[in-house]
Amino acid sequence: MIIDVHGHYTTAPRQLQAWRQAQIAAIGRSFNQTLTISDDEIRETIVSGQLKLQQERGTDLALFSPTAGGMAHHYGDESTSLQWTRTVNDLIYRVCGLFPTDFIGVCQLPQSPGVSPGNCAGELERCVRELGFVACNLNPDPSDGYWTDPPLIDKWWYPLYEKMVELQVPAMIHVSSSCNPNFHGTGAHYLNGDTTAFMQFIQGDLFKDFPTLKFVIPHGGGCVPYHWGRYRGIAHNMGRPPLREYLLNNVSFDSCVYNTAGMELLVRTIGADNVLFASEMIGAVRGVDPESGFYFDDTKRYLDAVSGVSDADRSKIFEGNAVRIYPLLAQKLAAQVA
Amino acid sequence: MIIDVHGHYTTAPRQLQAWRQAQIAAIGRSFNQTLTISDDEIRETIVSGQLKLQQERGTDLALFSPTAGGMAHHYGDESTSLQWTRTVNDLIYRVCGLFPTDFIGVCQLPQSPGVSPGNCAGELERCVRELGFVACNLNPDPSDGYWTDPPLIDKWWYPLYEKMVELQVPAMIHVSSSCNPNFHGTGAHYLNGDTTAFMQFIQGDLFKDFPTLKFVIPHGGGCVPYHWGRYRGIAHNMGRPPLREYLLNNVSFDSCVYNTAGMELLVRTIGADNVLFASEMIGAVRGVDPESGFYFDDTKRYLDAVSGVSDADRSKIFEGNAVRIYPLLAQKLAAQVA
Repeated sequence: MIIDVHGHYTTAPRQLQAWRQAQIAAIGRSFNQTLTISDDEIRETIVSGQLKLQQERGTDLALFSPTAGGMAHHYGDESTSLQWTRTVNDLIYRVCGLFPTDFIGVCQLPQSPGVSPGNCAGELERCVRELGFVACNLNPDPSDGYWTDPPLIDKWWYPLYEKMVELQVPAMIHVSSSCNPNFHGTGAHYLNGDTTAFMQFIQGDLFKDFPTLKFVIPHGGGCVPYHWGRYRGIAHNMGRPPLREYLLNNVSFDSCVYNTAGMELLVRTIGADNVLFASEMIGAVRGVDPESGFYFDDTKRYLDAVSGVSDADRSKIFEGNAVRIYPLLAQKLAAQVA
Repeated sequence: MIIDVHGHYTTAPRQLQAWRQAQIAAIGRSFNQTLTISDDEIRETIVSGQLKLQQERGTDLALFSPTAGGMAHHYGDESTSLQWTRTVNDLIYRVCGLFPTDFIGVCQLPQSPGVSPGNCAGELERCVRELGFVACNLNPDPSDGYWTDPPLIDKWWYPLYEKMVELQVPAMIHVSSSCNPNFHGTGAHYLNGDTTAFMQFIQGDLFKDFPTLKFVIPHGGGCVPYHWGRYRGIAHNMGRPPLREYLLNNVSFDSCVYNTAGMELLVRTIGADNVLFASEMIGAVRGVDPESGFYFDDTKRYLDAVSGVSDADRSKIFEGNAVRIYPLLAQKLAAQVA
């Protein structure tokens, strides 16, 4: 089985974006507009979009979440974020209901800059217990480009982590769009967010407090695998245990790397136990590579091209690690088989 | 010949740091303390520090600049930055005077958040024309972690670029320390700065306006080579020419990558014409790797371990590219031979 742990509903019917624009325009006033999207409209976007590509590429199942760039937690206040978040999470729930064997839900969190992440616990619990979601996306920078909230190792985040542990849900650490003109969204802010989060984990001792907390860092871990020697060295200088034993029981990387050399480095340096197949589809890099004739984000091709990976290791990357790291996914798959 | 394009005077006698602390403590008041360091003290730090390591590793020459983390442009105002910058540049000048065949100067710029980079032109000109320096370090984030100034493609930066072009000096794009608790300095802010700068260059069309402007992005280009497919794809989606022809006449990467897999990816993906040997020494990652028994930052070992690189290509990485990209370095080397 091939599980893609990183898919976004970037093709949602345009009513969604219109609703969001209206909500943003109404910040400071009450906003009760109803979002109306039919099942057929959802089906159409999925069948001609993500599902089509999944089938062409041989992916069996995607963990599916709202558009990361669309989270935009900096707009308005906590109530704005909660209203938007419930709306998009409900839409993901509908996708998963229409295509139950193709997509499993991952929720957005109603984060807001300066507001305790513990306030997200209610929506997380709703998504897991009522909507059947198996994970969440956690934005390490709700200011969307100015990094004004505390680092992920700060106790500020602990109430959310407690709920994640209780519910057995991992988080993908994923920034949203950037409103800082220095940071291009998918070309800088995303990768910087990944890199920043990993380094924060080196600095803290978070997993001593939360030994079962699990994170997936997307986009191949930002620059971490490429600079693995640098990170081993920095951790060594800080007196930390060897990096692998210090962090890799709790932190893994997805495989959203769009070239074979990068994929090879990822798998060989980090090892098959900590890489999860993903394509970030339909997402950051759309279209066909004129050099290869294939889609840039067809990450299975790059992975298939890496030589010397055993079948057992490929199976971990495609399926085993996801089932291990996302316990509620494992339960769902077991229930589908039964 | 082996040229290391990225060395910092991180071992300066402790009077330097004391002077800087006193200067910072006096912000808002006049400060005229004299920095007193003897030639012997400089010799001692260099002979037992950078020069010792250079000789052990077979490096012939280093481009040498003030400690990047120490630039800390966010302290005080423009006058604070100028006074500090002149002080550390003068110290680099003394090092290069004492060891003229081992070190060639690269200057810090007197940047200050919100102040026109054009105001750095005078100090750059002084360092080049009077002190014999061949390049500068340019901080893309003088706020040191909050990224409040415009991106590098903004006309805000053009007066400085005009002076660089006039003087024929390239810049290494190098952030300083981070005062944002989210960003560890050498483990996040440095690499994020590299990644961010490269993506800014994709967004703009800077080198149409400055066809001879040259930048070196340190630390192996942040995450750019690892995600080369992603950057090719994003550039393609934005309608840019192929990335190599669009940017690599003006932008190169140094080889500060502390593991063989990363070095191999860098050289193979980017190609020998755009990689410059460097070690960031004595810098971000000190000490000996317990796995290998060698210094983490002994980057020549990783480069030597990459197979299939021709002698001609190795020569470009070690020497030829530096001579080509830093014209004033070429002139100095020619003068030394003559």
